[in-house]
Amino acid sequence: MTEKLPVPVVWSEECLLHDPGGEVWLGVRDAGTEVPERALVLRDALAAAGAPEVAAVAYGDEILRMVHDPELIDHLAGVWAEWERAGFPAEWGRDRVVPYVFPTPAMLGDLPGRMPPAVHGRAGRFCYDTMTLVGPGSWTAIRGAADAALTAAGLVSAGERLAYALCRPPGHHVTRAAYGGSCYLNNAAIAAQALVAAGAERVAVLDIDAHHGNGTQSIFYTRGDVWYGSVHVDPGAGWFPHYVGYADERGAGPGEGANQNRPLPPGTADEGWLAAVRDLCAAAAARGADAVVVSLGVDAAESDPESPLRITEAGYREAGRLTAALAPTVLIQEGGYDLPTLGPLVLAALAGAAEA
Amino acid sequence: MTEKLPVPVVWSEECLLHDPGGEVWLGVRDAGTEVPERALVLRDALAAAGAPEVAAVAYGDEILRMVHDPELIDHLAGVWAEWERAGFPAEWGRDRVVPYVFPTPAMLGDLPGRMPPAVHGRAGRFCYDTMTLVGPGSWTAIRGAADAALTAAGLVSAGERLAYALCRPPGHHVTRAAYGGSCYLNNAAIAAQALVAAGAERVAVLDIDAHHGNGTQSIFYTRGDVWYGSVHVDPGAGWFPHYVGYADERGAGPGEGANQNRPLPPGTADEGWLAAVRDLCAAAAARGADAVVVSLGVDAAESDPESPLRITEAGYREAGRLTAALAPTVLIQEGGYDLPTLGPLVLAALAGAAEA
Repeated sequence: MTEKLPVPVVWSEECLLHDPGGEVWLGVRDAGTEVPERALVLRDALAAAGAPEVAAVAYGDEILRMVHDPELIDHLAGVWAEWERAGFPAEWGRDRVVPYVFPTPAMLGDLPGRMPPAVHGRAGRFCYDTMTLVGPGSWTAIRGAADAALTAAGLVSAGERLAYALCRPPGHHVTRAAYGGSCYLNNAAIAAQALVAAGAERVAVLDIDAHHGNGTQSIFYTRGDVWYGSVHVDPGAGWFPHYVGYADERGAGPGEGANQNRPLPPGTADEGWLAAVRDLCAAAAARGADAVVVSLGVDAAESDPESPLRITEAGYREAGRLTAALAPTVLIQEGGYDLPTLGPLVLAALAGAAEA
Repeated sequence: MTEKLPVPVVWSEECLLHDPGGEVWLGVRDAGTEVPERALVLRDALAAAGAPEVAAVAYGDEILRMVHDPELIDHLAGVWAEWERAGFPAEWGRDRVVPYVFPTPAMLGDLPGRMPPAVHGRAGRFCYDTMTLVGPGSWTAIRGAADAALTAAGLVSAGERLAYALCRPPGHHVTRAAYGGSCYLNNAAIAAQALVAAGAERVAVLDIDAHHGNGTQSIFYTRGDVWYGSVHVDPGAGWFPHYVGYADERGAGPGEGANQNRPLPPGTADEGWLAAVRDLCAAAAARGADAVVVSLGVDAAESDPESPLRITEAGYREAGRLTAALAPTVLIQEGGYDLPTLGPLVLAALAGAAEA
């Protein structure tokens, strides 16, 4: 008889309602990998491991509006209805919201750019890529994932040593004012802000997803109360998010020094990855943390189609142990796209956290 | 017997080598309307009207580099070869360069963003939409169109009263540092800069394309030597470029007051459009102009699929007359996508200019 996994799993049925219907990458709509089945596979694996399930509680928007521009939240809440009113879903292939024009500094020059009234023009103001599609059930799922993160943070603030939020869609690529990278609201940032709101003076976010969490970095870049550390495949080697995630991004103003990136070359396996995780944990410990948020992406696994890192279950178990040893910890599901290995990888990370 | 159209037509065979292969609009690749046949139709119509053809001369990059960031020029010159080296054309549907991630201010937050080494990441730094595709012959055609503009400007600087450059691809949506809107280098801005370099102290650019020439506006926004005036369908009514092209954009610094936009509601016909053209011409005349550049898009015609304006041949003839009456004039082909009416519309504008 195996021991039951002693980590509460926060679940929202609503997470299944988001069907992005694929992604548009370099001009072509592919099937995509951020599918509802991810959540079902994880839920089944966690139930089989005996982890207690906790239903996500519906929270208000207060915490969300502390990390996100309210305009982003309002846009996400309403964009599908606007898309429908504009008649786009009746056109072939336009069954999801995909922007086509993006107000980059190189486009705008000396002007700030007006907020376009038309939804098809405005879409690129709030979404910075073509691979993060919005469909009819998306907002309910996005909000459900945020509620799962808030509920898990609430458990830890109330005294639990560990809680895991089975968030889907994931969140760490969402900045204060724009979504992207298959993410819509930043669940990890929301959890960190909830911990601060509940009294934590110093929160450490450790992001072990295969990709740099540019959204979380950006949200806390000038804040001293939330430290952010990330280990990820080097964006300079051709990986999302391409423009940020480099080692010299160290925070600014009151957040100076409170941001640490450890970009790794493609092909990095457990040894190099865990060395970076240990390094980040040591930095977080040196700064001090009343609470920890782990952005738990398991797409750094060798089996995963979305990254060239080669991390094993043992690696994830050790990473779970190292991060959760720092302080009471909220684990937030981020990436991880290989359905057959997704369950074992997350279980390994949570088992490591439970051992800490 | 009809009189021959007394306007030299600058032509570059290279303009035909750009085959964008359609455009990606709201996530779907469509056939697009900016096709090589546009140039052939125009050339035939102008030849039939007896206009003298002048071969475009190959110029160096000096003038181009005065209106565009040299990084943009280098990117455009090399992006297709990089795309090929990366192997994308072997993937289904990735036979053209289309970006997928765009470094908007909302994405980057407090950071400027690193220049991504990988072409598929970097593409969105230099192109702000998904509808402006690059293929194998694109750069030769783009450079050929710029040479046509430079050659036409050279004719006017040398004493011709009028010269028309049959530029394709068009150019007025290209800013200093980014391309978009089916445009790659800003032929009109290049012509204006060439006129300045040849001694003109005040150049007026009159943009009568159906869409706002955000690129030209942006390039000259803080300059006092090149005035820019545009009449176009209101971007606030849901039309490209959505973010700019509003009436309150009036220039800045030394360019304060030297930028005038006349956005018009969808459905506007000759009367309202010509009132705006007259108004702009009066403003240009009041400021004084040694030379004029007309961004001659004929997509404001009722027959055109790309705009909801309803301008007739007579309207274009009058606009040609009004603009060319100001000073010696370089006419640069911009949009216009209805192949059966393209020739008559451009002929009308040039005939009007010749009457001035």
